[in-house]
Amino acid sequence: MILQKEIELFLEEDLREDDVSCTLVKSQNVSAVIFVKEDCIVSGLEIASAILDYMKIGYEQKKMPGDFAKAGDVLYELNGDSVSILRAERLVLNFLSHLSGIATNTADYVKIVKEAAGEKSESGKVPKIAATRKTTPGIRKFEKKAVLDGGGDPHRQSLSDMVMIKDNHIEIMGLEQAFSEAKRQTSFSKKIEIEADTKEQAVRAAEIGADIILLDNMSPQQIREVVALMEQKDLRNRVLLEASGGIRKENLKEYATSGIDVISLSAVTNAADWIDVGLDIANK
Amino acid sequence: MILQKEIELFLEEDLREDDVSCTLVKSQNVSAVIFVKEDCIVSGLEIASAILDYMKIGYEQKKMPGDFAKAGDVLYELNGDSVSILRAERLVLNFLSHLSGIATNTADYVKIVKEAAGEKSESGKVPKIAATRKTTPGIRKFEKKAVLDGGGDPHRQSLSDMVMIKDNHIEIMGLEQAFSEAKRQTSFSKKIEIEADTKEQAVRAAEIGADIILLDNMSPQQIREVVALMEQKDLRNRVLLEASGGIRKENLKEYATSGIDVISLSAVTNAADWIDVGLDIANK
Amino acid sequence: MILQKEIELFLEEDLREDDVSCTLVKSQNVSAVIFVKEDCIVSGLEIASAILDYMKIGYEQKKMPGDFAKAGDVLYELNGDSVSILRAERLVLNFLSHLSGIATNTADYVKIVKEAAGEKSESGKVPKIAATRKTTPGIRKFEKKAVLDGGGDPHRQSLSDMVMIKDNHIEIMGLEQAFSEAKRQTSFSKKIEIEADTKEQAVRAAEIGADIILLDNMSPQQIREVVALMEQKDLRNRVLLEASGGIRKENLKEYATSGIDVISLSAVTNAADWIDVGLDIANK
Amino acid sequence: MILQKEIELFLEEDLREDDVSCTLVKSQNVSAVIFVKEDCIVSGLEIASAILDYMKIGYEQKKMPGDFAKAGDVLYELNGDSVSILRAERLVLNFLSHLSGIATNTADYVKIVKEAAGEKSESGKVPKIAATRKTTPGIRKFEKKAVLDGGGDPHRQSLSDMVMIKDNHIEIMGLEQAFSEAKRQTSFSKKIEIEADTKEQAVRAAEIGADIILLDNMSPQQIREVVALMEQKDLRNRVLLEASGGIRKENLKEYATSGIDVISLSAVTNAADWIDVGLDIANK
Amino acid sequence: MILQKEIELFLEEDLREDDVSCTLVKSQNVSAVIFVKEDCIVSGLEIASAILDYMKIGYEQKKMPGDFAKAGDVLYELNGDSVSILRAERLVLNFLSHLSGIATNTADYVKIVKEAAGEKSESGKVPKIAATRKTTPGIRKFEKKAVLDGGGDPHRQSLSDMVMIKDNHIEIMGLEQAFSEAKRQTSFSKKIEIEADTKEQAVRAAEIGADIILLDNMSPQQIREVVALMEQKDLRNRVLLEASGGIRKENLKEYATSGIDVISLSAVTNAADWIDVGLDIANK
Amino acid sequence: MILQKEIELFLEEDLREDDVSCTLVKSQNVSAVIFVKEDCIVSGLEIASAILDYMKIGYEQKKMPGDFAKAGDVLYELNGDSVSILRAERLVLNFLSHLSGIATNTADYVKIVKEAAGEKSESGKVPKIAATRKTTPGIRKFEKKAVLDGGGDPHRQSLSDMVMIKDNHIEIMGLEQAFSEAKRQTSFSKKIEIEADTKEQAVRAAEIGADIILLDNMSPQQIREVVALMEQKDLRNRVLLEASGGIRKENLKEYATSGIDVISLSAVTNAADWIDVGLDIANK
Repeated sequence: MILQKEIELFLEEDLREDDVSCTLVKSQNVSAVIFVKEDCIVSGLEIASAILDYMKIGYEQKKMPGDFAKAGDVLYELNGDSVSILRAERLVLNFLSHLSGIATNTADYVKIVKEAAGEKSESGKVPKIAATRKTTPGIRKFEKKAVLDGGGDPHRQSLSDMVMIKDNHIEIMGLEQAFSEAKRQTSFSKKIEIEADTKEQAVRAAEIGADIILLDNMSPQQIREVVALMEQKDLRNRVLLEASGGIRKENLKEYATSGIDVISLSAVTNAADWIDVGLDIANK
Repeated sequence: MILQKEIELFLEEDLREDDVSCTLVKSQNVSAVIFVKEDCIVSGLEIASAILDYMKIGYEQKKMPGDFAKAGDVLYELNGDSVSILRAERLVLNFLSHLSGIATNTADYVKIVKEAAGEKSESGKVPKIAATRKTTPGIRKFEKKAVLDGGGDPHRQSLSDMVMIKDNHIEIMGLEQAFSEAKRQTSFSKKIEIEADTKEQAVRAAEIGADIILLDNMSPQQIREVVALMEQKDLRNRVLLEASGGIRKENLKEYATSGIDVISLSAVTNAADWIDVGLDIANK
Repeated sequence: MILQKEIELFLEEDLREDDVSCTLVKSQNVSAVIFVKEDCIVSGLEIASAILDYMKIGYEQKKMPGDFAKAGDVLYELNGDSVSILRAERLVLNFLSHLSGIATNTADYVKIVKEAAGEKSESGKVPKIAATRKTTPGIRKFEKKAVLDGGGDPHRQSLSDMVMIKDNHIEIMGLEQAFSEAKRQTSFSKKIEIEADTKEQAVRAAEIGADIILLDNMSPQQIREVVALMEQKDLRNRVLLEASGGIRKENLKEYATSGIDVISLSAVTNAADWIDVGLDIANK
Repeated sequence: MILQKEIELFLEEDLREDDVSCTLVKSQNVSAVIFVKEDCIVSGLEIASAILDYMKIGYEQKKMPGDFAKAGDVLYELNGDSVSILRAERLVLNFLSHLSGIATNTADYVKIVKEAAGEKSESGKVPKIAATRKTTPGIRKFEKKAVLDGGGDPHRQSLSDMVMIKDNHIEIMGLEQAFSEAKRQTSFSKKIEIEADTKEQAVRAAEIGADIILLDNMSPQQIREVVALMEQKDLRNRVLLEASGGIRKENLKEYATSGIDVISLSAVTNAADWIDVGLDIANK
Repeated sequence: MILQKEIELFLEEDLREDDVSCTLVKSQNVSAVIFVKEDCIVSGLEIASAILDYMKIGYEQKKMPGDFAKAGDVLYELNGDSVSILRAERLVLNFLSHLSGIATNTADYVKIVKEAAGEKSESGKVPKIAATRKTTPGIRKFEKKAVLDGGGDPHRQSLSDMVMIKDNHIEIMGLEQAFSEAKRQTSFSKKIEIEADTKEQAVRAAEIGADIILLDNMSPQQIREVVALMEQKDLRNRVLLEASGGIRKENLKEYATSGIDVISLSAVTNAADWIDVGLDIANK
Repeated sequence: MILQKEIELFLEEDLREDDVSCTLVKSQNVSAVIFVKEDCIVSGLEIASAILDYMKIGYEQKKMPGDFAKAGDVLYELNGDSVSILRAERLVLNFLSHLSGIATNTADYVKIVKEAAGEKSESGKVPKIAATRKTTPGIRKFEKKAVLDGGGDPHRQSLSDMVMIKDNHIEIMGLEQAFSEAKRQTSFSKKIEIEADTKEQAVRAAEIGADIILLDNMSPQQIREVVALMEQKDLRNRVLLEASGGIRKENLKEYATSGIDVISLSAVTNAADWIDVGLDIANK
């Protein structure tokens, strides 16, 4: 859900006290369209619509989150006061451009994984492409939704979403104690993930009851060995396996067929260029 | 200036109510370093320091905004409570990574322009590389500062910073009336920029007193003709000329030597990848 | 983590613009103690300490969250400015009283369950006592922490913490479709719970992969039957079973030995009386 | 008056970024009722209505604040978008449950006092039952309104509402000086109350002009003596007498007939259980 | 009490994102003084000190609220970072100038009343000069404190401070019903004031128990008649009498000796010029 | 643009939790007018309308910002709920009174300058009357708009609007270095002003490229000499000249004809009395 105070924070940043460029021409009712100038997966429609609502601009939304849009496709038909449209314009476009960029970028990764899995993996199982907490401060929930719109998995929204037991914890407390302490402090309604650097750690983490195991910086071959070992010990179905670290578009295929459940990489959110989105006021 | 409420908004997004991953290990005093894993121009130090201050983490800052850092260089030496460092970690790194990415990207554009101007422009004058209002909602002032740290020009922070008279205004009101109305509504302390689509409009804008003229979507050759015409009419020194639209890394050199004063492009802020920045807690 | 803006919201409510009762006597350095007047499980220390920090009152904290305190036991020794202590007093005491009330109440339920399970359950497994979302608006995270301090489970902090598929969803979409749609919209890092009204639904929910099954308004006997059926189908270890609805102190023992994993009841948070906590300023 | 920012603070706590449980089923127009499952005095209607307004849910309010409702009585008939109703549900019910609990609890105390006064007091005068500042942090104004809805007196909303001169003040400054200093710092538009531990103090406080005298921890008999002494000195009509400390349901009757004007006790707000309130979406 | 969020709101207004004028010179430790350039009654010290604290500027405060300061007198000696002092300067001076202006203006009115009462009133009783709710939006509590610092009475801080029954209420509901309804809705801890347009209304208001009677737009002679009538009916000591409407510096003396208790006029807050206050950074 | 959170901040200050004076009479639909009781230049209509919108009060606005209104002229015809109108009344009137006071005051200064310039200046050029940053904390943008409505120039909204190089900067860094450093840190889209205490400084500032020169505390005669010198050196058209310091209504005429472009004085905002504005609810 999007709150009015969020919208005001963003509008305030762009308008400040004295936006003469918007008020120069007397206000009048106008029509306009928002359209994409590049092929993309559309994202950001919830916040764009919320801003239009806040500014009391009428609109018809022509695409749904996650839809593919061809260059030239219209996202919104607008009808409203000219001053309001000028005031909303840049903010709406910035969100649509940035978030559609992330959705489109995510979709690229998802496609690679799907194709690879379809080709090579015997099970036909397709690992998920997941984001990380490496997102732009202040708009994470929108960026995570863009990942979902692009076919990816948003992963944790915040440190409160799931407990992650890392090498630091293990080093200081030992795996068992860290896990039991995490269990004690955490609701049954949340998952606990354990980071494993070796096959042995991964097995042990599964045995003591981790919901998810993060295989950090492992090669596809190492992952395969973990998977095999887990199956051998009848632990494979008890846990989800997540890979992260050192994964790039170039080696993504190999990870896709390694038997992993989730591949998380920050590039889906922080190496995505903006999609060019424009607003045209109708000449009449 | 950075306010506590800004820091709280960002921290809240990443921590939420129940960050067991941070509190699992008893709090203790630790040392740590923040360092870059890639060559870059450093940015984001003001907000990073402000977050560290808020969290009461001691630090020594080893670089200044705009400094070049080699892969491996340390930005901060930290000393503080382990829980506080874990809580601040992701947010601090996200800012440093994102903003250093923008500074580094900006510096690339600035370098191209400087080299080109040094080679080919007779006057030796180097146009400025300026950002636009196409920035990530919520953190514009930080992204604009990153552009400055990268050697670029931040351009307008908001619609209240300068009046921009666009083709829409001119079409409806006429250039003279739009300009005199803008003068009436705007303080003498602010500049007025007029968008020109043709040489004639540009000249007329200079004649009536525009501070800046935006040459929109003009080719380097067209810009040269505007500059020549302005010089001929003794108007060149009265105005700044800004070019925008259709400018890319590939054709930047030609713009750099066109006689323009400012080249503004959204790519400096919205096509910049993140720099990899890490935090290591000292083992002891 | 507790933010300054939270503390200010609470302080503002109690002080408003003109607290003459606090400023009547000239400010001076005084000592004081905060102590409990009834036996209780202590909770609220994090927010109490944060308020004292905000008001720059020095303190020594004598108990830890979840500790048992006997009537008369001191929670804090304070030293600071008299005006600041008077300003902080009511707010600090209100939090400590209300939250220790919840922790103490929770501990009562936990004790009943523990004793019952110790006596009668063959496995010795003790079900968790969990809170619900029936908490006082505005201070949920503190009330949830009080439940944890009392030995209970906080359950969901918000609707974003876990997906709950309810009878409404199932009626409209069917169980399978509701579950697969939930899977599509939700990160792998979150659990999905399905509400079951019958044994058959419970089994089916386990088969399709629910992490948790909510046995709504079932009697201890019905729960035993679900558990038996699940064991028979080898599903028992794949899921957590949660009971809610119609559970009271009077029948809690029977639920405790029914084989359930979690018993959630709103009474832990919303039928807890306040603990009497006082602040004495030292004479002299 | 209820502000949008208050509503947003409460909604945000319950919804957070990603409430899949609400959005799982496509939004559609539905009808629903909010009804009580126990006999009660209704409170919380102002904030409930404000939340429904914020969520753009249509409603017909069937009860007024302070009305008696029988188990099964409907408080609201709703008509609106299903997603909005699911989002508002828990928050609206939490307020209605908690606040109707306080109103109902208050009404119990008021009833005891009324019956006792009707029977035994010669004057027929019924003392007021008043709340204290021992309220749940963040929602005091709603709890105070619930006390009013239950027939009680809200007492001070904050430390700025009235000056209270306590034993500490008197000890340090002396009664006369504390009172004259309070007069100097306080507007004529506010009352000044003085705490008295003895009959003599009470008389002196009335003589120097206190508006209200707090008889702290006095027995009904001691209060009677104060009242008699005041009448004898012709001071009784100049002041209000408030009793607090050590008053419970068990001894309330005796206080009710002691001649006191106001009986204040924290139990009206902090020993009130929640009323069970439900929301049913109409099957169609 | 002054909250950090208030200070941030004010600082943000003056600084915004990019205060190059402050950061142009490298930060260094400097000394400075804040001093008045005109004789005045000093006010605004609480908020000035709070801003200096927020900016971590060291200071010695040389005057107390309500002190008389001669032109040239120093209010603060400062020591701190030059950038911080430049950032705080304008805001601190604006508060001190505006609020000392109100205090000084109030003191003028108080002086007139005191002198007049000393000369002519037989009782020697001096009426209070009170402010109204005609204050600058957003800073009322500071303006009210300035009135107090100038020797006046702040009157109501908000509509919640006291109930005021006006002619509109009386016309619609009748005086008795309006009063008894007000009693029902209002805590015993608050006063109720009734506006009276005639002597008869004033008497009736006193008889039914009003705490204060507002004699609206009455001449000094009419007020004398009300006072006489009240004394005759033995009501004078039960109520406070407040005069407002049509009172100016020119006729203030006559009101001062009319027997009234309180004279309220908006001019104390909204016809006060600013005091010239300066900040000098020490040359060294 | 005016945000809802601004309106809520102001409303909250005047209403607080419990405005019985507003709710005493049952809500009903009423008509009302807002009218001025003195001749004035109208200002504050934007914020007044925004408050009425927020309170859902219907209105017809009868004047535009900057219009002259005769005593008795109506600004708004209102139609709405009586409780809402009572709640909005004081806040709306305070803004209209204060801001129309500033607009009217500004218009006085503007008139003096216009008449003087029309009479005596050979060029017929009329200098602008500009405000300063000496405005009431929290409502600067409204006060600045009032200056504009009165025919004046708002000058800087904040320290971020323009760079001002002052004597302190020059003393420490030297004029050239301060200016080039300012150029480096500031966007081309902003102006740079240099403060000059002597003719020579003024000329030098113009030569190095200042956009505006502040002639601080210069007499009209000194200004004339600066102007003459500038013309002689062909610099006059490159810069704007602003005078400030020691300018009062009495000597304003002389400044008006000194050849200066801008006269800035704090008196336009901080020595303006309020205009008497009233609200009458129609008797029916």
